[in-house]
Amino acid sequence: MIIDIHGHYTTAPPALAAWRDEQIAAVDGRSPHPDPADLHISDDELRESIEANQLRLMDERGIDVTVFSPRASFMAHHVGDLAVSQQWATICNDLCARVAALYPDRFVPAAMLPQSPGADPATSVPELVRCVEELGAVAVNLNPDPSGGHWTSPPLTDRSWYPLYEKLVEYDVPAMVHVSTSVNPAFHTTGAHYLNADTTAIMQLIQGDLFADFPDLKLVIPHGGGAAPYHWGRFRGLAMALKKPPLEEHLLRNIHVDTCVYHQPGIDLLLSVMPPENVLFASEMIGAVRDIDPQTGHSFDDTRRYLEAADIDADTRTEIFSGNARRVYPRLDALLTANGR
Amino acid sequence: MIIDIHGHYTTAPPALAAWRDEQIAAVDGRSPHPDPADLHISDDELRESIEANQLRLMDERGIDVTVFSPRASFMAHHVGDLAVSQQWATICNDLCARVAALYPDRFVPAAMLPQSPGADPATSVPELVRCVEELGAVAVNLNPDPSGGHWTSPPLTDRSWYPLYEKLVEYDVPAMVHVSTSVNPAFHTTGAHYLNADTTAIMQLIQGDLFADFPDLKLVIPHGGGAAPYHWGRFRGLAMALKKPPLEEHLLRNIHVDTCVYHQPGIDLLLSVMPPENVLFASEMIGAVRDIDPQTGHSFDDTRRYLEAADIDADTRTEIFSGNARRVYPRLDALLTANGR
Repeated sequence: MIIDIHGHYTTAPPALAAWRDEQIAAVDGRSPHPDPADLHISDDELRESIEANQLRLMDERGIDVTVFSPRASFMAHHVGDLAVSQQWATICNDLCARVAALYPDRFVPAAMLPQSPGADPATSVPELVRCVEELGAVAVNLNPDPSGGHWTSPPLTDRSWYPLYEKLVEYDVPAMVHVSTSVNPAFHTTGAHYLNADTTAIMQLIQGDLFADFPDLKLVIPHGGGAAPYHWGRFRGLAMALKKPPLEEHLLRNIHVDTCVYHQPGIDLLLSVMPPENVLFASEMIGAVRDIDPQTGHSFDDTRRYLEAADIDADTRTEIFSGNARRVYPRLDALLTANGR
Repeated sequence: MIIDIHGHYTTAPPALAAWRDEQIAAVDGRSPHPDPADLHISDDELRESIEANQLRLMDERGIDVTVFSPRASFMAHHVGDLAVSQQWATICNDLCARVAALYPDRFVPAAMLPQSPGADPATSVPELVRCVEELGAVAVNLNPDPSGGHWTSPPLTDRSWYPLYEKLVEYDVPAMVHVSTSVNPAFHTTGAHYLNADTTAIMQLIQGDLFADFPDLKLVIPHGGGAAPYHWGRFRGLAMALKKPPLEEHLLRNIHVDTCVYHQPGIDLLLSVMPPENVLFASEMIGAVRDIDPQTGHSFDDTRRYLEAADIDADTRTEIFSGNARRVYPRLDALLTANGR
């Protein structure tokens, strides 16, 4: 079985973006706030948007199940205030849950949180509860920078984040640390901001001692861990300078990285540096990079090919493709097990 | 010959930091502005600080020449205003030039610029001129984020940077894109901010068309190019999505990356992805990571060992150790040639 733990609903029917545009216009004072009840997307529209895109590619690539969350760049937590984010998160999470309900063997829902710059992270707990208990979310995406590239939030090790961690641990639900659109002209969203956030999160976790307080918290760092595996020597050395335990102990019991690295040498580096039990198969398809690599003739984001070509044994490959995900995402495992998979 | 193109004066005599502390106190209104003439550092003090540190390690590691610039984290362009940065840059650049004058066969000066948040980059041109013409600087460090982690400057492709680029091209002097201390609690200086800046700079240059305007401009991206080589597939794919030419054409005629990557797998990745002519030997010694890697028994930043162990032929290794640097830093080459080297 192959589980892709990192897919976003990047192909939602246009009505979703149109409703969001109305919401943004209202935030800007250009029009009244739209009613979520005015957003109508039929099951057929959902099916069309999925079958022509994610599901088609999953079938082509042999991916069985995708952990499916709202489009990352659309979370845009910087827009408006907490109430705006709450309304928007509810809508986006409901849609992902509907997709998962339409294709229960293929998609499992994950949730975005209704974060907002300056808002106490504890305000995201009710939506986390709703998504896990009512929608069956097996994971959440946690944005370390709701400001969208201005980085005004305290590090992930700050106690203000703790109410979220407590709930995550209680539910045994992992959080993927994933930023959204950059509104800072210095940072290209998918080329700089995403990778910087991954690197930044790992360094914040090295600097702090979060997992001493939350030994059972599980965080997933996407995009192959940003710059960290490539600079693993630097990170090991900085941990020593900061008088921290070895990273195997300080970090790797609690964090995992995904395989959203879009070329063979990158995947090979990742697998040579990270213990295999810390690596989770993912493609972020359909995402930032949609073209075919002229060097290979295959899609950049067809990450399964890199894993198949990597110099790892069959058992390791199986763990990366599904075993690790079932361990890190217990609610996903429970769903699969309940279906005899 | 082995040339390290990335060394900072991280071991300057304590009088330097004491003077800077007085200057910062003055900026904070706690005391009068100190007079640069009150800073006294003797040649013997300079020798002591170098011979016990950089020069000792260069000898141990067989590094012949270091391109030597002021301590990156001390540039701290966020402190005070333009006048404060101008005074500080003058002092730091003079010290590096004095070190180079004391050890003309071993150190060649590079300069920091007197940047300041919100100040027009053109205001750095006079110090650039002074350092090249009077101090013999062969390169400069250009900070893409003088705010220290708030990223308030426009991208490097913005026309406000052009006066600096014009002068760099006129002198045939490369600029290393290097940030300074992060004052943003989200970003650890050497573990996140440095690497993020490298990644960010490369993505800014992919987004823009700077080298169409400056075909002869040469930029050096330190720390192995941040996350970029590890994610080279993503960057190639994003360039395609942005309708840019292949990166060989769009970027690699003008940018080079150094080898400040502190473990063997990282260096191997770098060399497998980047054309060898774009790679410049460097260690950033004595810098962020000063410990011995327990996995190897050698210093993390003893990057020569990784190059020696890498699967490259002797000619390629020679180019990376010195040939490329002599091509990218023509004023360094001229100095060496004049000395029969």
